[in-house]
Amino acid sequence: MIASNKLRQFTQEVFLACGMPLPDAILAADVLIAADLRGIDSHGVARLSGYVRLHEAGRANMHAKHQIIHQTPSTATIDADGGLGLVVAPKAMDLAIEKAEQVGTGWVAIQHSNHFGIAAYHAMKALPKNMIGISMTNASPLVAPTHSKERMLGTNPICIAIPAGKEWPFVLDMASSAAANGKLEIAQRLEKDIPLGWVQTQSGEPSTNANELKHGGALLPLGGHKGYGLAAAVDILSGVLSGANFGPWVPPFVAFLNPLPDLPGKGIGHFLGAMRIDAFRPASDFNHQMDLWINRFKNAERIDANQEVLIPGEPEYRLTLQREKEGIPLHPSVASDLQKLAEKFGLSL
Amino acid sequence: MIASNKLRQFTQEVFLACGMPLPDAILAADVLIAADLRGIDSHGVARLSGYVRLHEAGRANMHAKHQIIHQTPSTATIDADGGLGLVVAPKAMDLAIEKAEQVGTGWVAIQHSNHFGIAAYHAMKALPKNMIGISMTNASPLVAPTHSKERMLGTNPICIAIPAGKEWPFVLDMASSAAANGKLEIAQRLEKDIPLGWVQTQSGEPSTNANELKHGGALLPLGGHKGYGLAAAVDILSGVLSGANFGPWVPPFVAFLNPLPDLPGKGIGHFLGAMRIDAFRPASDFNHQMDLWINRFKNAERIDANQEVLIPGEPEYRLTLQREKEGIPLHPSVASDLQKLAEKFGLSL
Repeated sequence: MIASNKLRQFTQEVFLACGMPLPDAILAADVLIAADLRGIDSHGVARLSGYVRLHEAGRANMHAKHQIIHQTPSTATIDADGGLGLVVAPKAMDLAIEKAEQVGTGWVAIQHSNHFGIAAYHAMKALPKNMIGISMTNASPLVAPTHSKERMLGTNPICIAIPAGKEWPFVLDMASSAAANGKLEIAQRLEKDIPLGWVQTQSGEPSTNANELKHGGALLPLGGHKGYGLAAAVDILSGVLSGANFGPWVPPFVAFLNPLPDLPGKGIGHFLGAMRIDAFRPASDFNHQMDLWINRFKNAERIDANQEVLIPGEPEYRLTLQREKEGIPLHPSVASDLQKLAEKFGLSL
Repeated sequence: MIASNKLRQFTQEVFLACGMPLPDAILAADVLIAADLRGIDSHGVARLSGYVRLHEAGRANMHAKHQIIHQTPSTATIDADGGLGLVVAPKAMDLAIEKAEQVGTGWVAIQHSNHFGIAAYHAMKALPKNMIGISMTNASPLVAPTHSKERMLGTNPICIAIPAGKEWPFVLDMASSAAANGKLEIAQRLEKDIPLGWVQTQSGEPSTNANELKHGGALLPLGGHKGYGLAAAVDILSGVLSGANFGPWVPPFVAFLNPLPDLPGKGIGHFLGAMRIDAFRPASDFNHQMDLWINRFKNAERIDANQEVLIPGEPEYRLTLQREKEGIPLHPSVASDLQKLAEKFGLSL
């Protein structure tokens, strides 16, 4: 267990040691710590050494200067200059919010980026402005389209964050695959089988083996062909609309795999949006009715009296409160990973 | 088998006989026939008598005059005046397109509406303008949230239509439930079991009984809690943002069930959007790369050499070509339903 502020400070120092300017290091660290606070441990400091390796492989620009390369009153496209999505995505979200303030909604496509951490961080930036936030990204190809044995799509997450009144906001942040890779890793550590429907073998057979990806298998899309369609739509909005890479050409996050030759675009892509509530109806009416929506669903008749009906985002809000107070638990392998980073950069953790 | 133009003409005449003005009857008929042409038989003329019964029950306004009740440069909210979604949604999509022409994107929320037919019809209106179209709606509560036995959400579909170059556009039109009600009806007719994961019993147990909904059971969301989150997001954007009803208060499509008392909103709700491609990048670059995207996915390595990898929307484009030429097959129960409408209104079919 480690205090979140101590972990945040350390994470900043690692990014600084990689040559990132201070404001960007603060931002990148905040995105990673937000993941750990929310309990999305796979996307927090567990990935810090991965970002460092991308930098060392010359595949992440730590002093990237993003630019707007195309825009209209409600849209923009940003070239992230090969930097981390952790840094450019929050800045792009600020631009989406600014455009929404002007004309009701704002939409920003981003090319030439790298992994942006948890989607929720970016979408949730809209909440204090009483706006709906939307974020999505494409990612390293691991998921097979329906009827194919080839890895063509990432776990391509979608997040929508919706403000309420007195209640916690509604924050849906989901991969478009049946299960995220992190869930497979948990089963691997426990040496347990996984449910049918999560992965297939290299030849496309159903499998319950949590190690299937290491043997050339693929993740499966959420609920079959519909999840394939969703993942594809996220890939097109994030990759094709922005001018980034898409489908099997999305550069892998892991530094030991090289991008394919003859890439059709630049880096990986994201797509972000912000919609002002009062661009559609008086904000107080909406906030009041969101509270009604939330309370009605929380009180939906339970199957098991001891298992409550949850609102998307609710478990993460609860965990954030707990971890801000009690600290963040680190898996031994993550703790040792961070220790190695501390030694490499002469930092203390 | 019946020629699509003959069926279209008959459908228009039925709407005219219900008191709908000619331009609106032409539009409503076009939406229904588009569903039959695309092979979404459950949403085509099979529903015509349902719309007539809603009208007869005083729950659908056949001479509705919609109005814009709120707007910004990129957004609007429309009161559909209790009319059919079949009529107001295409008109609202025209407004979204107009706004996108002005400021890059356009987004329209609709309250006080009724069932809008297939989501794809509305989103696809963006395609000839080289825009991305988005449409969604809430619907009669049939789906239970995760951990609940209560029917709280509709099959709440989402459609995204994306233009390509030489290839057919990408058109994903999917319910956010594991299976649409129409699939259960097919299994009922064949007296076959359905896969686990589609429905649960009244007490929340998994079931393979295609008749479970008639015994108080519920449909299940796509892929578990993620589908619940998606359906909920569609409900909030369509219902809460527009000022329509939401969740369990969405008025039922079937005229023999009455809406609940003390409704929090007006009618059912939709949410539509249009995004200009050239608001993000030069349109020809995008169209060219969409063709590359489509061809790469169509050529993804197959599991079974005889089962091709499909692009969302592809089967519907093929079927439309076929049915425009060969005619639309009518299930005997639908044919007899239409015959009764013909007799009721003194029309010939």
